[in-house]
Amino acid sequence: MRVRDLRPLFDPRSVAVLGASDDPAKWGQWIAAGALRGAHRRDVWLVNRKGGQILGQEAYRLLAELPGEPELVVISLPAAAFEQAIDDSLAVGARAIVAITAGLGELDGAGKDLERRVVEKVRRAGAVMIGPNCLGVYDAAADLDVGSNKFTPGTMGIISQSGNLAIELSLLAAEYGVGVSRFASLGNQADIEAAELVEAFAADEHTRVIGVYLEDFRDGRAFARAGAAAVAAGKQVVLLAAGGSEAGARAAASHTGALASDAVAVEAACRAAQIQLVATPKELVDRALASLAPHRPRGRKIAIVGDGGGTGVVTADLVTEAGLELPSLSDELSGRLTDIAPSVITANPVDLAGAGEQDFWNFERVTSAILESGEFDAVIFTGYFGGYSQMNESFSAVETEVGHAIARAAGTSGRPLLAQAMYWKSSPARALRAGGVPVYRDIEATVDTLRHLVGQYEAHSPGVPDAGEPAPPIVGDGYFESRELLAAAGVPFATARRADSVEAARAAAAELGYPVALKALGLLHKSDAGGVALGLADDAAVLAAATDMHERLAPEGFSVETLVDTTGGVELIVGCRRDPRFGPLVLVGLGGVYAELLRDVRLALAPAGADELEALFLSLRGAGVLTGARGRAAADVRAAAEAAAALSRVAAAHPEIAEIEINPLLVTPAGAVGLDARIVLG
Amino acid sequence: MRVRDLRPLFDPRSVAVLGASDDPAKWGQWIAAGALRGAHRRDVWLVNRKGGQILGQEAYRLLAELPGEPELVVISLPAAAFEQAIDDSLAVGARAIVAITAGLGELDGAGKDLERRVVEKVRRAGAVMIGPNCLGVYDAAADLDVGSNKFTPGTMGIISQSGNLAIELSLLAAEYGVGVSRFASLGNQADIEAAELVEAFAADEHTRVIGVYLEDFRDGRAFARAGAAAVAAGKQVVLLAAGGSEAGARAAASHTGALASDAVAVEAACRAAQIQLVATPKELVDRALASLAPHRPRGRKIAIVGDGGGTGVVTADLVTEAGLELPSLSDELSGRLTDIAPSVITANPVDLAGAGEQDFWNFERVTSAILESGEFDAVIFTGYFGGYSQMNESFSAVETEVGHAIARAAGTSGRPLLAQAMYWKSSPARALRAGGVPVYRDIEATVDTLRHLVGQYEAHSPGVPDAGEPAPPIVGDGYFESRELLAAAGVPFATARRADSVEAARAAAAELGYPVALKALGLLHKSDAGGVALGLADDAAVLAAATDMHERLAPEGFSVETLVDTTGGVELIVGCRRDPRFGPLVLVGLGGVYAELLRDVRLALAPAGADELEALFLSLRGAGVLTGARGRAAADVRAAAEAAAALSRVAAAHPEIAEIEINPLLVTPAGAVGLDARIVLG
Repeated sequence: MRVRDLRPLFDPRSVAVLGASDDPAKWGQWIAAGALRGAHRRDVWLVNRKGGQILGQEAYRLLAELPGEPELVVISLPAAAFEQAIDDSLAVGARAIVAITAGLGELDGAGKDLERRVVEKVRRAGAVMIGPNCLGVYDAAADLDVGSNKFTPGTMGIISQSGNLAIELSLLAAEYGVGVSRFASLGNQADIEAAELVEAFAADEHTRVIGVYLEDFRDGRAFARAGAAAVAAGKQVVLLAAGGSEAGARAAASHTGALASDAVAVEAACRAAQIQLVATPKELVDRALASLAPHRPRGRKIAIVGDGGGTGVVTADLVTEAGLELPSLSDELSGRLTDIAPSVITANPVDLAGAGEQDFWNFERVTSAILESGEFDAVIFTGYFGGYSQMNESFSAVETEVGHAIARAAGTSGRPLLAQAMYWKSSPARALRAGGVPVYRDIEATVDTLRHLVGQYEAHSPGVPDAGEPAPPIVGDGYFESRELLAAAGVPFATARRADSVEAARAAAAELGYPVALKALGLLHKSDAGGVALGLADDAAVLAAATDMHERLAPEGFSVETLVDTTGGVELIVGCRRDPRFGPLVLVGLGGVYAELLRDVRLALAPAGADELEALFLSLRGAGVLTGARGRAAADVRAAAEAAAALSRVAAAHPEIAEIEINPLLVTPAGAVGLDARIVLG
Repeated sequence: MRVRDLRPLFDPRSVAVLGASDDPAKWGQWIAAGALRGAHRRDVWLVNRKGGQILGQEAYRLLAELPGEPELVVISLPAAAFEQAIDDSLAVGARAIVAITAGLGELDGAGKDLERRVVEKVRRAGAVMIGPNCLGVYDAAADLDVGSNKFTPGTMGIISQSGNLAIELSLLAAEYGVGVSRFASLGNQADIEAAELVEAFAADEHTRVIGVYLEDFRDGRAFARAGAAAVAAGKQVVLLAAGGSEAGARAAASHTGALASDAVAVEAACRAAQIQLVATPKELVDRALASLAPHRPRGRKIAIVGDGGGTGVVTADLVTEAGLELPSLSDELSGRLTDIAPSVITANPVDLAGAGEQDFWNFERVTSAILESGEFDAVIFTGYFGGYSQMNESFSAVETEVGHAIARAAGTSGRPLLAQAMYWKSSPARALRAGGVPVYRDIEATVDTLRHLVGQYEAHSPGVPDAGEPAPPIVGDGYFESRELLAAAGVPFATARRADSVEAARAAAAELGYPVALKALGLLHKSDAGGVALGLADDAAVLAAATDMHERLAPEGFSVETLVDTTGGVELIVGCRRDPRFGPLVLVGLGGVYAELLRDVRLALAPAGADELEALFLSLRGAGVLTGARGRAAADVRAAAEAAAALSRVAAAHPEIAEIEINPLLVTPAGAVGLDARIVLG
């Protein structure tokens, strides 16, 4: 999609509210009241076909009667009046429309057609429209408030397909002292879609982090690309994607199709774009809070500082569980801490053990020394800090000063400091936040956020790939066509001959040389159906096996193949599925029924490179099987990754392929070879 | 341990504070001030060797000068004065001692001895002592407050090994309107241990839920038994067990030893006792909040009620992810809801979709109808409810009334209602809580708590087993001794002969009949070392294999065994490890390197019955391998469970066994048979 200017939507020079109302129980009044709050910097005109006074202002009967051109028109009218309102708005020169009106595209039938027609008109006029069926728009810096939600100004942008979710996000953020820079309610996404809003929010100087609640991705790759661009521009994007549990019923013909669920497709897109994917409003806000910090971790070496053993021990358990590291302090650093106060326990977690009570400034001295030591990539500050402020005013004043000083120390250290405080709303906690230290209510949110920041640093995301130019479409989806297409792309397979009869199978086997494998063609799951015979050593064995398959399964024919030595090898699955939202996805996993039961698979957007796919193989929970667990020889994971990369290129170049897989792909210390292949055309 | 009366500790008739101080910065003053808050119902005497005025009260110089017997003595004196203080206290008839004094058993050296000596004196006098190195005791109903922490009275008991953790728990609980009934700081657990406190808290009528923070379990089985008794008496026990991440380094000789970590041992004990195990303070309080509800779920059929699609969709995702069920509403119930308000969307989640805004009472009508339908085991109420109260006072009054009514409806329905509200501190939310509806801040806590309540209902825990009488100890730990001990307990093994030479192996094979398996004896990991040969079909094969092993491995001898047909079988691991805290633990899991990498194992306290072990096998993540995934025949899991039960009886009866395992145990559709056995003596 071309880049469009959304300035008229978020910072219009003039606004008209169509359907403004004098009834305090109606949306038309709430929106009018909000719009009027920006009257000091733009013309705000209220329109109601009955005219009269609304909120102390004379209402216009018609858009055509306005004294000027309304750059933004908010339409809060019933569905029956919607199209006329659009026509009128465009006629008076509207550049942007906020369509509150419900009862259109979200219902089946005529509403959908009307919505489509309206979008064409809006686009033809060079205007933009958000909604319909949306709750409005808010921009703190522009004093624009044409919606039903009330927000505290701040630095978090919210793009949401649910009004209540947006309220919940803003309330949770406000508890952390984080306000809202901008809000856009998506509604039916008839014209403006989420991706375009992410672009616009990323370009907004007042927005530091973009929180998105989305049920309907539309063009998922466009969304991912917009997210990646925002992250590259230094704005975190946190996505709450809902509705994943409903997608379980999707039918799939291949194992890849069954394993690559809609939910993991979203995960793959987010990973590529470095979008942070969360499952709840609290998680979204916890992640967004981290955007307060001026620095990000550049490694996984963590120090914990606290007072009192318990919180430190609990934090250490969580940090270890999260796969982060808690290295010991150097002797030099330990010495520096005991110089500050002899009672400090200089293990990791560091425990002030009373030194903070003796002198609140010891909190700052100890934390600064650790931050500045260069021995850690990030510091977690936890415990009672903030509690002294509850005792009396002079304690509060000093502790708050210490909070400011700790935040300054974190700022100059170049390292992120994340905090958790049981007195998370206290004045010292607010001082930390004001200085750029995210202060959490719960320690699990702190550690989880840090884990994701470290993961983001380590990810070396390859970005969101383009599918590229399509190749000439294929027509055959048989076993041999699948093998040949993949082999041409560079995937090694055993030598195979097609045989259309039992006798032809025997002849092919003799020609290839024994032992051979025999496969019945044309079955959905050859192996499960008993259509695969391995290690046939002579003519008699081939004849017996082929005759048996012929009688039991009535196959289309046979494939006779040079037997691959599987000793010491590991069976993998690699495949691609074309997702209607995110395009082709490549899946890698360990083969076998156990790995399938545990869904130990990873996905990436296709086409994917061998580097990325190798990293995905090595990130499988059971990756130890590949890297030499229990004295096994390490498998040639690179060769497997190259085969998967080739497969992903094939899938990306062939939009007509719904599913394609190599299952199993055998990987040994010496390389990788496909033992089976399947294509499902869309 | 005998049951002791802890009434003098929590509700003494008189209290003396040794080390009371007039310095407002000293603990001796905080404790004295707390003790004086109970002066309206008991004698409170302050003791300081300098005498003088403390907090407006004349201090005594010596305990001997008191006008009466102090039933409870709080000792807040330096370590050097501790033993004398104990002697003096017992001399004047103290029945209970709160030992604040630090610098004793928590340090190495003389402090440990002194502590041990003091405990003997206290016990000999028939008194009890909490601490030393503790922060005191609080009992809301008894107006007893001899500690440094300040609490809001309520229904949660806290037993903690960390003072700061206890403060954090009480602060989080207070945000939910849940106060503290009792608090005990464990300190060094020199006399009173956590188990005894759990018993005492369970017997306290004002305590509805017991939250425990523990680093050091002491007698873990006693703790588990106390927890089980409390749960049986209707008090939930929630345990935050810390320090699990430090235990990774324990050396282990068997796979069982390596897989049965200290952390999973705690899990097994909690499962047996129905103690809820959590990892963070927030989780503990979230679970404790559920104790507000008068009913518990008796199944996994969940209904979600909310207003606004977004929260409902997010909740549905979490409920599905948690493995709970979201059945559709019956036509009858749907009809009843649309009779209440036509706009209600009667899917599950149920969405009021504006009906709540039209009439706040629709929240109650819809929720009541769902609760009373009998179609669901629990209801989650979520969304904007509470928000109207923020708009004006008349809205607030009505919405609060509706909150009370919803809570009443839940009370009479016999079904649990859990709520999450973005306005979680609003007056309507408080009304819900006051009526017995747990109202959460975040939806993940709500769903997680419900999931655990359902799990608790479904668990049919067998309780905490007794190890029983020990059998005569064994001395040999060789392969044949291991097999014979287990076979005698009822575990099937293949027929085997011991052979001390290559020629003896051949002779044994001929006697057993071919094919046979040959194993080299005396190696730690036979199979990994190449000390196992399967399917030897004749004399020549046995001679060749035995000669090769003899030359490569120099084994102690050989085992020659009838070959077991492993076709269609699944290899399992079953084993026991003796834990220093929790005694013998039995482990079950799938065999093979992949399952081991993924730690797909389950543990129970030994001895365990076949019913429990069968359920554990079936709860493995990869259990589908056993129950017929991908068209396999289902394995005889019962036979495997009986073998594991026999092994667990052996382990429980032999305290001298540190580790014992059958690995692999082969399970087929026809039964289970041990293929290897190992014992490690302690």
